[in-house]
Amino acid sequence: MKKTALIMAGGRGERFWPRSRRDLPKQFLSLTSDGKTLIQLTVERIRPLVEREDIFVSTNSDYLPLVKEQLPDIPEQNVICEPVGRNTAPGIGFGAAYISKKYEGDAVMMVLPSDHLVKYNQMFAATLQDAVEIAEDGCNLVTIGIAPDFPETGYGYIKFRQGEAFRRGYRVDHFAEKPSLEAAKEYVSSDEYLWNSGIFVWKISSIMKHFEQFMPDVYEGLSVIHDAVFTSQEKEIIEKIYPKFPSISIDYGIMEKSNQIYTVPGNFGWDDVGSWLALERIQKSNEFGNITGGNIITVDTHDCIIQGGEKLIALVGIEDTIVVDTEDATLICAKDSTADIKKVLENLKVCNRPEYL
Amino acid sequence: MKKTALIMAGGRGERFWPRSRRDLPKQFLSLTSDGKTLIQLTVERIRPLVEREDIFVSTNSDYLPLVKEQLPDIPEQNVICEPVGRNTAPGIGFGAAYISKKYEGDAVMMVLPSDHLVKYNQMFAATLQDAVEIAEDGCNLVTIGIAPDFPETGYGYIKFRQGEAFRRGYRVDHFAEKPSLEAAKEYVSSDEYLWNSGIFVWKISSIMKHFEQFMPDVYEGLSVIHDAVFTSQEKEIIEKIYPKFPSISIDYGIMEKSNQIYTVPGNFGWDDVGSWLALERIQKSNEFGNITGGNIITVDTHDCIIQGGEKLIALVGIEDTIVVDTEDATLICAKDSTADIKKVLENLKVCNRPEYL
Repeated sequence: MKKTALIMAGGRGERFWPRSRRDLPKQFLSLTSDGKTLIQLTVERIRPLVEREDIFVSTNSDYLPLVKEQLPDIPEQNVICEPVGRNTAPGIGFGAAYISKKYEGDAVMMVLPSDHLVKYNQMFAATLQDAVEIAEDGCNLVTIGIAPDFPETGYGYIKFRQGEAFRRGYRVDHFAEKPSLEAAKEYVSSDEYLWNSGIFVWKISSIMKHFEQFMPDVYEGLSVIHDAVFTSQEKEIIEKIYPKFPSISIDYGIMEKSNQIYTVPGNFGWDDVGSWLALERIQKSNEFGNITGGNIITVDTHDCIIQGGEKLIALVGIEDTIVVDTEDATLICAKDSTADIKKVLENLKVCNRPEYL
Repeated sequence: MKKTALIMAGGRGERFWPRSRRDLPKQFLSLTSDGKTLIQLTVERIRPLVEREDIFVSTNSDYLPLVKEQLPDIPEQNVICEPVGRNTAPGIGFGAAYISKKYEGDAVMMVLPSDHLVKYNQMFAATLQDAVEIAEDGCNLVTIGIAPDFPETGYGYIKFRQGEAFRRGYRVDHFAEKPSLEAAKEYVSSDEYLWNSGIFVWKISSIMKHFEQFMPDVYEGLSVIHDAVFTSQEKEIIEKIYPKFPSISIDYGIMEKSNQIYTVPGNFGWDDVGSWLALERIQKSNEFGNITGGNIITVDTHDCIIQGGEKLIALVGIEDTIVVDTEDATLICAKDSTADIKKVLENLKVCNRPEYL
């Protein structure tokens, strides 16, 4: 069966401020030393499994120019623009309707976040191939689970059934939303929980049947959209129907409700690149434990993340601090305070300074 | 007797980098909230004692444009340019020769650093007036001493004789160069030591007699310079003689050798503004203990000194840190590491990046 990919690139994350902005979110940033952006790496990663013309990108019109610029080889027709953000369930449904119209038949669909990193691309491809094989069987929905390293409370977890292996995956018992630290510790030690990576594999027919069962109103709208795609009324109908969809995640809307969910554990060096701290995992530090980029001088400065540009940044006697310098804004943040970066953005919103957002 | 002032403005201090540069040293910076530069405040401070046309500024040709710009009311003829730096003994001697030629007779001469601050200007003027009265008597050299607050090891100390009061001053027993912490602690607790402020008062005839006695070679050169000042040969002779002078401080060359030294204790809120930390003494901090200037957002940030400009600087979870942002360079320095700022400058010199010096 034809394999397609839908890359989700509509996110507006704020955690890489001041480098990420409303008009330049994380997926379009280069955070690795190879200079490639996260979305470029995402495409590169699935190319062994999916032909270029079968890769679709879901975004919104604000980011259309960035997608075209960064992914010039993706056919323009494959870039799907949501008229408004409605979370992942309508977003994925829209993608599925669009892709199925293009192929006029069933296809395997891989859904991939555009702002994550993977260290071992070959193992990634192998894991996805395993997921494809489960997805092609019946009406299964497959999610890639990541063996948790530590009791992260910011991720969702997947509880699977060790006793119900199927091919190279397991049947999912249930999903657990962001847990308490206590619960997360229990999950990590139990061997039956995985992190929910947000990477999904299914046949378009399977996810559509699930929409029909669990989100019938959305299903109805998607059917209308499906009929309109590639007609002269496409834009008009999408702009009429899409905004009426509820803003619901695919996890909440479908995955948590179905009993046909499988997970394939992935062991490919996954990283969701959740904050500036991720640079410690994805870039090499120097002899002083500093991760530096730009025009930097350090004196007695250790374990810092320093991301500058042309401007000289001199650090003297600094430890465990993140410094990010851009044209119009500089962030200086203690490593243990990254969760508070959003307060800077709140302040900027309250004080009506959109030029920095 | 006519009162004159010589403001010493040739210094090239590096401790306010990156705001101070080779072409903009500390005396030309504004570090107080009133926006006036240190040299402007120095002139303002002595105006109650000295007429504008009797105020002289000793600097070098690099800073001539800055002096003219910042002190437009000082007659151009009163700006004395050293052809090369030769420390304070030749510098003061040159000033004395120049001023005495202008007045064709004796005058009181106050020597004032241009890069210090004073909180109580009236008490400053009263103290200097006390010093003038001692200086007018015989051949006395008078230095203003500051009652030490703490055992600073970076200053020179004056040991005076409590039993030998003269008018509102005391006879100086000896000078002590930058002491060890142990010695400094002893000095502070003894009540017979003062900090050496670098502010001197004497008659021109007195300091010249001292040059004649303790630095006869310099005296001879100064006599030749004195004769040449205001003649067509002035520039030529100064450029020939001045560079041959030894680079010696007035303290070492004369003050420590003479037994005609008096000190008047000053209690006028003196501050030598020795590093960025001085801003904690001279500017008001906000409710979080931060001293801020510029376009700043702080989140959970305490006891910092943040000096920016137009560019947004956001600090999150930072404590006890100095941040100074300029057009082309940013300094981020732990408060207890200010002594290491010079290592940044050494690095810049070694790496041949004079644009930042």
